[in-house]
Amino acid sequence: MTRITLLTDFGTVDGYVAAMKGVIAAIAPDAVVEDAAHDVPPGDVRAASLTLTRYWRLYPAGTVHLVVVDPGVGSGRRALAARVDHRILLAPDNGVLTRVFAEAAPSAVVALENPAYRLAGVSATFHGRDVFAPAAAHLARGTGLEALGPPVPDPVLLTLPRAERGAAGVHGHVVHVDRFGNLITDIPGDWVPPGARIEVGGSDAGPLRRTYADVAPGHLLALVGSAGWLEISVRDGSAAAALDAGRGTPVRVDPRSEVPHER
Amino acid sequence: MTRITLLTDFGTVDGYVAAMKGVIAAIAPDAVVEDAAHDVPPGDVRAASLTLTRYWRLYPAGTVHLVVVDPGVGSGRRALAARVDHRILLAPDNGVLTRVFAEAAPSAVVALENPAYRLAGVSATFHGRDVFAPAAAHLARGTGLEALGPPVPDPVLLTLPRAERGAAGVHGHVVHVDRFGNLITDIPGDWVPPGARIEVGGSDAGPLRRTYADVAPGHLLALVGSAGWLEISVRDGSAAAALDAGRGTPVRVDPRSEVPHER
Amino acid sequence: MTRITLLTDFGTVDGYVAAMKGVIAAIAPDAVVEDAAHDVPPGDVRAASLTLTRYWRLYPAGTVHLVVVDPGVGSGRRALAARVDHRILLAPDNGVLTRVFAEAAPSAVVALENPAYRLAGVSATFHGRDVFAPAAAHLARGTGLEALGPPVPDPVLLTLPRAERGAAGVHGHVVHVDRFGNLITDIPGDWVPPGARIEVGGSDAGPLRRTYADVAPGHLLALVGSAGWLEISVRDGSAAAALDAGRGTPVRVDPRSEVPHER
Repeated sequence: MTRITLLTDFGTVDGYVAAMKGVIAAIAPDAVVEDAAHDVPPGDVRAASLTLTRYWRLYPAGTVHLVVVDPGVGSGRRALAARVDHRILLAPDNGVLTRVFAEAAPSAVVALENPAYRLAGVSATFHGRDVFAPAAAHLARGTGLEALGPPVPDPVLLTLPRAERGAAGVHGHVVHVDRFGNLITDIPGDWVPPGARIEVGGSDAGPLRRTYADVAPGHLLALVGSAGWLEISVRDGSAAAALDAGRGTPVRVDPRSEVPHER
Repeated sequence: MTRITLLTDFGTVDGYVAAMKGVIAAIAPDAVVEDAAHDVPPGDVRAASLTLTRYWRLYPAGTVHLVVVDPGVGSGRRALAARVDHRILLAPDNGVLTRVFAEAAPSAVVALENPAYRLAGVSATFHGRDVFAPAAAHLARGTGLEALGPPVPDPVLLTLPRAERGAAGVHGHVVHVDRFGNLITDIPGDWVPPGARIEVGGSDAGPLRRTYADVAPGHLLALVGSAGWLEISVRDGSAAAALDAGRGTPVRVDPRSEVPHER
Repeated sequence: MTRITLLTDFGTVDGYVAAMKGVIAAIAPDAVVEDAAHDVPPGDVRAASLTLTRYWRLYPAGTVHLVVVDPGVGSGRRALAARVDHRILLAPDNGVLTRVFAEAAPSAVVALENPAYRLAGVSATFHGRDVFAPAAAHLARGTGLEALGPPVPDPVLLTLPRAERGAAGVHGHVVHVDRFGNLITDIPGDWVPPGARIEVGGSDAGPLRRTYADVAPGHLLALVGSAGWLEISVRDGSAAAALDAGRGTPVRVDPRSEVPHER
C-alpha cells in the first residue's frame, strides 16, 4: 500500500482534482490518496514550494508527493520525478521543488517521458491528469523511478530570497502569507537575539515572543514559527491585513535597538 | 472494497460533508471515500453537471459517485441511483446527471424509495445524510441497485446549450467558468478550423492555439481544453475577469476571417 | 483499522493539514484519515463546536475525532482527549467540546501531557502537528486513552446561548450561519407551535414550513433544520445576506400572532 498526496492549485470547485484521483484509482486501486491542499493561488509556484516544506518529510519513507502547480503546462517544460530522502516527489520542472532540494539533495531526478506511464493522447493543458497522476499510480504499483524516463541533471531552481546578517542587524523579507495572515519570513529564528527590536515594513513588532498569548489580542508580535522561521503575527487577527504587508515586505532585526524588558 | 466519491455544494466550513462520511462509515466501514469537490456554487446544478464529466468515467468500474447539489430537497423531486457504463451515480432528480447520460446511456435508473436503505426519520432538508449516503453505503456493501427502489423511466434532463454550425461559422456560448477563470464553451474543439478567428463577447481571441505558452503572459487565447471543448483563457490570468464574461457569453468562430499567420 | 477525522481552521492553502496527516501516517500508517472541514473561520471556537455536532456521533464507535481550532496554542491551555459515547475526541481545552459534552457526558477526559505521545520538541504555535496528531495516531494504534496523560476533572465549557420560553413566546438567537446563508438558531424545533409567527431581527419569516420548496424562490422561510433547531432560510438564496443577520441576531416566536393559513 503506497500513500500518494496531492498539492495543486486546482481549487475545490471544478473536477480537476477528482480527475487525477480517478486516474490513480484506475491504475493503482490500492493506493491511499490524501489531499494536501488544493487552493494554492493559481500558478503560484513560490507558495506551493513553501507549502510543500510543511509536510513532505513528515510523511513516512515511501510516500509519493504529487505537486501540480503548472503555469507552463504544454510548453517545453519537463515533468519531473525525484527521489529525495526515500520519498518520491512528482512536479513540473518549474522550480516548485527548490525548497525540497535545499532541505535534502535528490538521489535521482528523471523526466516523465516514457509513454508507457502516461495516458494515451496527452492533452496540452492538463498534465496533472495525463502525465503526473499515471506516473504516481505506476510508482505506487511498484514501477521503479528510473523506468519513468531519462535522468535530469539540471532541474530548474528558483532563486530564493535570503536574509542578510551584518553588524547592523538582519535584513530579510516576508516570503509567504498564510491563511491566518501570518507573515512568514526568510530569517532563521536563531538569527534573532533576545530583546532585539523587529520591524516589518516600518512597523515595530517588538522583541521576539514565544507564542501568540504573550501579547494582548489585536497586538502585533514576532515569534519563531513551527518551521523555524521568524514570523510576524497579530494575536487573534491578521498581520497581513493590519500592516498591508505581503510577499516581499522588508523585515529588519536591529540588535542595537533593544526593547525595554517587559514593556 | 468499493470506492465512493462525493461532489456537493456543502462547502468546507460546516460539517455537512462529514455527516455524510459518518453515515457511510457506520454502514460500510470498508468503503473508501474520496472528496471530488465541495465548493460547487450553492444550488448550481449546471456547474455540478459539468464538473461530474471531468471524472466520473476516469474512475474504475464499480465506483459509486455521489452528487448532492439539491436545491429541491424536501420537495417532490425524486432521489436517483443510475447504473451507467459500470459505475453507479447517485443524485437528486434535477438534471445534474444530464451530461453523464449524454455520454453513455444508463442501463438502469431507480428511485431511492426503499426505507430499508434510508436513515430512519428522513429530514426535509438534508437528504445527503439521510437518503444518499446510506444508499451509497449499502451499494458498497453489495446491495443491488434494483433493491433501492422502483425504476424511473423518465429522469429529469436539463436542456443543454448547443453550439450551431453553418456557412457563416460557429455560434456557441460559455457554459462554465473554472477556478482559473477559463471560459469553457459548448463548441467541440474539432469544429474550429485552423486559422479561424475566435470572438468572445465581442473580443478577439485570435486563432486556435495549442497551449497557454503559445501567447505572452496576460494575453487572451483560445485552445481545445482537456475535455475536448473550445476554451478561452488568459495566460497566467483570468479570462472571465479580463472580459467580464461568464456563463451564457456568446462565442463565435468565423472561418472567413482568417487571422494572419504568426501575428 | 481506526478512522480519524480532522476539523480545523487551517484552510486549504497552506500545508498545515498535510503536516498533521504526515505525522499520523508516520505513526499509524493503517489509520484511515478523513477530512471533516478545514475552513472554520480562524479561531472561531463556537463555529467549530457547532460543526462538530453535525457528525461526531454519526461516525461509528471507535472513531477518533480531531479538532484543532486553537487560538490559545502555546499558552497554558490544556490539550484534551475525551471518551464520549465510545468515540474519542481530541481538542484544545477551550470549550470547543462543549456541545459534544452537552449531548453525552464524557466517561473520561485526560490532558495530553505524556511526552511519549508527543513529537520531540513541541513548538509553541502548532500543537495540531506536535501534540494532537501524534496522540490521535497512537490511539489508532491501540494506546489507551488514560496513558496519554492525567485526568482533567474540569474541562473548559462555553456558555451557550439558550432560547427562553414564556407566555409571550420564545426568544432566541442566531448561533451559526452556514455556507448557504442559513441562520441556525438556539430554538428547539419542537418549541415552535404551528402557525406561530417567526421574526428574525425584526423581519417576518412567517409560520413554520417543512422545506424550502414551501415558499417561492427568493422568499424568507423558517423550518426545523436537520439537527432539530429552528432555522431561517431564503429559498435559493442567503438569509444572512438578505437580512444582514449573523450570530447573535434575535429570533422571536410569537404564538399569539398567528399567521393567516395558506397566505
